[in-house]
Amino acid sequence: MIRDEARPTLEDVAAHAGVSRSTASRALNEESYVSARSREKVLNSARELGYSPNQAARSLVTRRTNAVALVLSEPETKVLEDPYFAEIVRGAFRELSALGSQMLMMLVDSKEDIPGTVRFLDGGHVDGALIFASHQADQLPAALRSLRLPMVFGGGRPGGTIRGLHLVDFDNTGGAKLAVEHLQSLGRKRIGTVSGPLDQRSAVDRRIGWQQTLGLSERTAARLSEEGDFTPEGGEQAMRRLLTRVPNLDAVFVANDPMAAGALRALQNAGRRVPEDVALVGFDDHPGLAEATNPPLTTVHQDPREQIRQMMATLHQLIDGDAPAPRRRVLPVRLVRRASA
Amino acid sequence: MIRDEARPTLEDVAAHAGVSRSTASRALNEESYVSARSREKVLNSARELGYSPNQAARSLVTRRTNAVALVLSEPETKVLEDPYFAEIVRGAFRELSALGSQMLMMLVDSKEDIPGTVRFLDGGHVDGALIFASHQADQLPAALRSLRLPMVFGGGRPGGTIRGLHLVDFDNTGGAKLAVEHLQSLGRKRIGTVSGPLDQRSAVDRRIGWQQTLGLSERTAARLSEEGDFTPEGGEQAMRRLLTRVPNLDAVFVANDPMAAGALRALQNAGRRVPEDVALVGFDDHPGLAEATNPPLTTVHQDPREQIRQMMATLHQLIDGDAPAPRRRVLPVRLVRRASA
Repeated sequence: MIRDEARPTLEDVAAHAGVSRSTASRALNEESYVSARSREKVLNSARELGYSPNQAARSLVTRRTNAVALVLSEPETKVLEDPYFAEIVRGAFRELSALGSQMLMMLVDSKEDIPGTVRFLDGGHVDGALIFASHQADQLPAALRSLRLPMVFGGGRPGGTIRGLHLVDFDNTGGAKLAVEHLQSLGRKRIGTVSGPLDQRSAVDRRIGWQQTLGLSERTAARLSEEGDFTPEGGEQAMRRLLTRVPNLDAVFVANDPMAAGALRALQNAGRRVPEDVALVGFDDHPGLAEATNPPLTTVHQDPREQIRQMMATLHQLIDGDAPAPRRRVLPVRLVRRASA
Repeated sequence: MIRDEARPTLEDVAAHAGVSRSTASRALNEESYVSARSREKVLNSARELGYSPNQAARSLVTRRTNAVALVLSEPETKVLEDPYFAEIVRGAFRELSALGSQMLMMLVDSKEDIPGTVRFLDGGHVDGALIFASHQADQLPAALRSLRLPMVFGGGRPGGTIRGLHLVDFDNTGGAKLAVEHLQSLGRKRIGTVSGPLDQRSAVDRRIGWQQTLGLSERTAARLSEEGDFTPEGGEQAMRRLLTRVPNLDAVFVANDPMAAGALRALQNAGRRVPEDVALVGFDDHPGLAEATNPPLTTVHQDPREQIRQMMATLHQLIDGDAPAPRRRVLPVRLVRRASA
């Protein structure tokens, strides 16, 4: 868009009034959450500069509903049982609530739910959406592609090849590296992994971090790994299979804490002491879970609240009409040492 | 509805303009996400065909969003940790999804969240709302009073004196009676209770059922009861207090299963065998909880899925313009016998 330099812009009005761009925007559009004093300054500046908001831009702005969708594209059982999602819902609710915005949680359990979700998001009912769609075959990101709604994705690389998305992810590969290096520093030699479901980018990346740090061939990696489903039961079963195939395993990196709790059970039921016989490192550092196992879990800490905060910051830029370049932002993780390794 | 064949329909306009029905609808209703070009084509076609949307039909088209709000007016920690709410969310999602409707879960954590919630519900974004607001001091039901939105409440008697609400509740008093009669049939003589928080109607009703069945005076009831908060920790603490005061207790009715799990821990830590020394009956029959304790819980079974189903049935009548008389519907409960009593 070529800007007509002769006409004052919203930025000019904001600068003249000495307020932020978003405050100026809210004041001009008669929204709440602007003090009477700021509103007056902005209106005076607009008059003085001869500012007349472009009609199209204005109609976009005035359609604000003050609601933001939190879209979780996962089986509902998963959402309601995995503590990671509870943290996401809690974080999104608190952040939005503090801003006076309404959180609308929407579940996409299967592809049958996609059309309704897209229709609602396209209906002008929300100002934007935070979207968690981690499965690589998920058709939701592609279906959302044509919407003009501000959207930020949490984790994954939705749709694989879809470009131009705003994305906030954790350093999954780096986290796996921290876990494996810690196990190596303890002198462990046969370090296996229970991976997450390999249709999810985070699970793939954690497995890659494990494999690369150990410098394993594909063949050896396949022998030393089992795929779980990110649930305690799945972790227990995968650990049992792995232990049967590699009975002299002396360490295991388990790709999330719920599975690590299950793997711990499998190891102890098989008569292995943790950490003496088999050292174990998880991933997530779920409050209430990582410390509740016996022994407590050494694990890779990630912060879902920080993920939400970063997603919200980008979303608000998009809602305010700024257009930051789409990018994948990667949040750091760190190792938390407890008794399991 | 009898269609007047002579008059052009929305479909006719869409076909004439060469756009989809939904694009035509959006263009005629001045919604966004329609290109200027499409809008112009649709408006021209409408003029040319003499299309004039019937006012009532028009308001239906513009007002139906195919979305239903699930409003949970509880501290968010409670919603994300109590398995009853997981069941409610799951049930509402499945029922709505089966009908092709979109569930929007909204949390009301404190009274600061009320104005935004009311504003959104009043904004024409949803066709109706299922509302869980069980605390007697909750100001949400009163704040929703003036909305014309179809609403059905789940449990409680919101606002105490508010009339004209549609409400689906469980037979809490009757459930407590079943629990106490079962304990009496086992020959138990000193039957205490750990009640829920007494600012909630369900907790009050369960305590009344216990007191009435035993025919206790207020004074004796006060001595034989402790108030918990519906969490495992709260149940454990309340049980400990009750046991200290009434060491020769031989049975206890605990007003929900999470508290019953905590109470069981308190009893066992105090050296009481369950059920031999103290028999215990819970309330809820949470899948995955009531069977997981050692011993498994004898408990009062309620069915949150059935509650949601009944609420949806009423809500759909209201959305369709039928006006069933407001009433409080009470769902039956039943005793499930396991090893704890």
